[in-house]
Amino acid sequence: MSTPRHSAHAATSTEDTTRWWATAVSDIEPGVIRLRGYPVEQLIGSVSLVDTIWLMLRGDLPTTTQRELLEAALVAAVDHGPQAPSIAAARMAATCGVGLNSAVATGVNLLGDVHGGAGQQCLALLDRLAGHDAVPLEETVAAELADHRARGEHVPGFGHRFHPVDPRRDPLVAAVRAAADAGHVTGRHLAAALELERQLAAGRNRPVPMNIDGATAIVYGELGFDPELSRGLFCLSRSVGILAHAWEERSGGRRIKGPLPPPLLPDYDGPEARDLPSGRMAP
Amino acid sequence: MSTPRHSAHAATSTEDTTRWWATAVSDIEPGVIRLRGYPVEQLIGSVSLVDTIWLMLRGDLPTTTQRELLEAALVAAVDHGPQAPSIAAARMAATCGVGLNSAVATGVNLLGDVHGGAGQQCLALLDRLAGHDAVPLEETVAAELADHRARGEHVPGFGHRFHPVDPRRDPLVAAVRAAADAGHVTGRHLAAALELERQLAAGRNRPVPMNIDGATAIVYGELGFDPELSRGLFCLSRSVGILAHAWEERSGGRRIKGPLPPPLLPDYDGPEARDLPSGRMAP
Amino acid sequence: MSTPRHSAHAATSTEDTTRWWATAVSDIEPGVIRLRGYPVEQLIGSVSLVDTIWLMLRGDLPTTTQRELLEAALVAAVDHGPQAPSIAAARMAATCGVGLNSAVATGVNLLGDVHGGAGQQCLALLDRLAGHDAVPLEETVAAELADHRARGEHVPGFGHRFHPVDPRRDPLVAAVRAAADAGHVTGRHLAAALELERQLAAGRNRPVPMNIDGATAIVYGELGFDPELSRGLFCLSRSVGILAHAWEERSGGRRIKGPLPPPLLPDYDGPEARDLPSGRMAP
Amino acid sequence: MSTPRHSAHAATSTEDTTRWWATAVSDIEPGVIRLRGYPVEQLIGSVSLVDTIWLMLRGDLPTTTQRELLEAALVAAVDHGPQAPSIAAARMAATCGVGLNSAVATGVNLLGDVHGGAGQQCLALLDRLAGHDAVPLEETVAAELADHRARGEHVPGFGHRFHPVDPRRDPLVAAVRAAADAGHVTGRHLAAALELERQLAAGRNRPVPMNIDGATAIVYGELGFDPELSRGLFCLSRSVGILAHAWEERSGGRRIKGPLPPPLLPDYDGPEARDLPSGRMAP
Repeated sequence: MSTPRHSAHAATSTEDTTRWWATAVSDIEPGVIRLRGYPVEQLIGSVSLVDTIWLMLRGDLPTTTQRELLEAALVAAVDHGPQAPSIAAARMAATCGVGLNSAVATGVNLLGDVHGGAGQQCLALLDRLAGHDAVPLEETVAAELADHRARGEHVPGFGHRFHPVDPRRDPLVAAVRAAADAGHVTGRHLAAALELERQLAAGRNRPVPMNIDGATAIVYGELGFDPELSRGLFCLSRSVGILAHAWEERSGGRRIKGPLPPPLLPDYDGPEARDLPSGRMAP
Repeated sequence: MSTPRHSAHAATSTEDTTRWWATAVSDIEPGVIRLRGYPVEQLIGSVSLVDTIWLMLRGDLPTTTQRELLEAALVAAVDHGPQAPSIAAARMAATCGVGLNSAVATGVNLLGDVHGGAGQQCLALLDRLAGHDAVPLEETVAAELADHRARGEHVPGFGHRFHPVDPRRDPLVAAVRAAADAGHVTGRHLAAALELERQLAAGRNRPVPMNIDGATAIVYGELGFDPELSRGLFCLSRSVGILAHAWEERSGGRRIKGPLPPPLLPDYDGPEARDLPSGRMAP
Repeated sequence: MSTPRHSAHAATSTEDTTRWWATAVSDIEPGVIRLRGYPVEQLIGSVSLVDTIWLMLRGDLPTTTQRELLEAALVAAVDHGPQAPSIAAARMAATCGVGLNSAVATGVNLLGDVHGGAGQQCLALLDRLAGHDAVPLEETVAAELADHRARGEHVPGFGHRFHPVDPRRDPLVAAVRAAADAGHVTGRHLAAALELERQLAAGRNRPVPMNIDGATAIVYGELGFDPELSRGLFCLSRSVGILAHAWEERSGGRRIKGPLPPPLLPDYDGPEARDLPSGRMAP
Repeated sequence: MSTPRHSAHAATSTEDTTRWWATAVSDIEPGVIRLRGYPVEQLIGSVSLVDTIWLMLRGDLPTTTQRELLEAALVAAVDHGPQAPSIAAARMAATCGVGLNSAVATGVNLLGDVHGGAGQQCLALLDRLAGHDAVPLEETVAAELADHRARGEHVPGFGHRFHPVDPRRDPLVAAVRAAADAGHVTGRHLAAALELERQLAAGRNRPVPMNIDGATAIVYGELGFDPELSRGLFCLSRSVGILAHAWEERSGGRRIKGPLPPPLLPDYDGPEARDLPSGRMAP
């Protein structure tokens, strides 16, 4: 069909459309795949998956310290069991007749502002605290906590619904401390997080210790990742657990798995049974 | 509201509901996170991300060869540029006001039977070929190819839309060959794939060389992964590229990015403009 | 950066890119939106949502019978409660800090081959049965059922996990019968489904009555929809229930809702707690 | 495996788990499906799809005016062509070997804060403006616009990237005006939107007319929908267009459709080709 509106496009060239999709990440041509400039055939067998993650997100290969810290954070967050809605949803998806890709996507999609965003929010907070030079850290932290209390908000990255102490905290804190002691990272995000933890504990019966979101936020902050991208890293990490659970469920062979074992049914607490008004009934 | 149907549930115990969600992947209790039995605090800093992927999917830590081969395959497949619909969709999602998690999920969701499934199908084929003992491989392969030709089907894992030679083939084949020579893997999947490649090339002007799906299928087959799970591994790998592209697009700040640069509009080839029949028009 | 590979694109014109995205569904130009040729401003207020669904999928407006049958099928399938994984996953998503759009997408994504595909498979079966002219229906059905039994497969669209009689069967069957009696549809899909039901019941203590997938497959078949598209229609219908449930959960304000109420935790049935081999421990 | 942590669950009953999934939307028991109390068999054939949408979201059936206004808004927003990323992504998904459900989910997932959220934001604004009683509307609107200008923000629901006048505005405004004149709705949201439009146009060469997000926000506001739920309604509406486009693409049979027609490739503007540092190369 002739579409005369195309006269409006006269000034547009083919180059405009290839430029619209331009990227600095990878260069793909016939027989050529380069990631951030490196030929993929040189990367295979030479660099690790975590090296490659860093390369793709940051533009060049990491130092040893950078790789080790990133690796520790990614390993730490791979799983937290089927009680997490992301894991449960992926397991249910795996019984519904979709590919494993869609089961993994289902889980990752649930890592939203509340389920997956605490690390991002904690890193934004640590970035603010770590950026203050003139004011003593103790005062900056106190002011932030006062702000949070005034708004009635939890401090992201601290406290956990059922872990009194999160077992992932100590090894991550220790790894960052060692890197800071060696002069490989500044240690400013670590200092800010520890001061937050100290002040949150003061005067309480039950402390509010750093959780996995806080501990990984330290790592990502020391490594210079943007807070939003730290959520992306969490997605890569948790995808491992999501896949393992989806696969376990898939292997089990259950079909259309709901949240409750049959014959259990959800309660109903809506309107009593009623008839359609006679005026609405079809004749 | 009283719900008398619950009498039907009398025989159901609380244990039934916790058992419904039972898992052998991870044990999460207050203060405790164990992955396949190992305390997470021992894993952090000691094992690599690829070790952890293997642990979560296979139940224990890999040998050095297993880790190296898995790492090579995961590195090889991280990206193939924005021309791939999975990457393009994730980049568009990143401009629509959803979290990076949803952008990554969008991309992974597209790695379906056609876009992400060739490796899975190739591995199923290699499993069949590698499992034949009595018949010479040459004959088994010839029979499979005859079957494919009779059905008019492409052989999954061979040929590429624009790479005359896929640069990822040689390093992956070399890595498996080295492992087979050292006796760490059997080399049967490698032999089957090479024989497929040889017979596919015979009598053609343009060979049909192994592509990334074929090359990674060799690796995953030699490592004993289920074909379906090999698609899951591809999802983990490609998630890296998906995230890198989504983040690049997000950083660029474009909003509601469509496939064509404005002012270009898609062609319309449907019915001519027409008025609603007068009988359908509201008064 | 100068990219010399673009010489390869010399033969590509801007028109190629607008044609790549060509559509016969809608024509969008500045100030103009036409759906299948009709100006949107004429449709608003004049035609119903179900008219519009038909228009968009079939290319023109439906007759009264077509609209009424489609409407009945779409109303029938809107919900089946939180025990369905699609509904449960959407409800969980709504507590994770994603938009309602992502909660709805999560639910729809789960309507896969097993959870949402029985209607599609049933319609494919009814299409086969309804297409036979020479052979009596009774024999064709008997042969299909014998095939299913030989393969050990359920007949899609018949039987239900807990409804002894599906309350949606009778009104949908009645609506199709009335349309067939009036000569508005052929009634061949209806006849095939009823014969399937009759033969499935023969010689059993417990009949295997038609379920919602079977009953809607009759409607979609009589209306001439492709089996695959019937799954799409189911997605539109069930989206209503998915949204209602996601919104109820969102309004309730729960955060990060898992499948089990705290403090319940999933059972763990994996390896006993164990230490990392000393050779794998970081120094 | 014996899991002693279960002693912690002693106080939890089976009823806790069925209550955890309680709903007021639908009551599903063997042989029974009631939506908001109405037996589904009474609804089928008697009420329309839009009636059912209202029933599911609001708890009872709509009045005639409510149904007509909701129907008009849902019809208005079904499609805006493949230039929209939600439509383009769904079309690409349909070529990747996933079910139509996943293609639809892909599109809906992209209706985020930016792509699908303008209506929600506009309704929140209209709710604020319509809620002011003492102050004249003219002043309230002026204050809001001054706020937006001070923050450098667009007013959601007004202006369009390429429609100088949105053809969907007039019929929706007319429908609400008629309902307000008949006393069926208050007309306060309409008045607020028109005053916004008037003040936005004042002193400009090119007016900033109401777009589809603004026009539907009026409808949803007059009908008493929560702003967040209005995005849910948009998802139901746009799902129709998403499905129609996904199905058109699926029917066309293309495989792995990227954003650019082959042989076009995205531009690359990253680092020059380079070799891996020799220290990183595998031996």
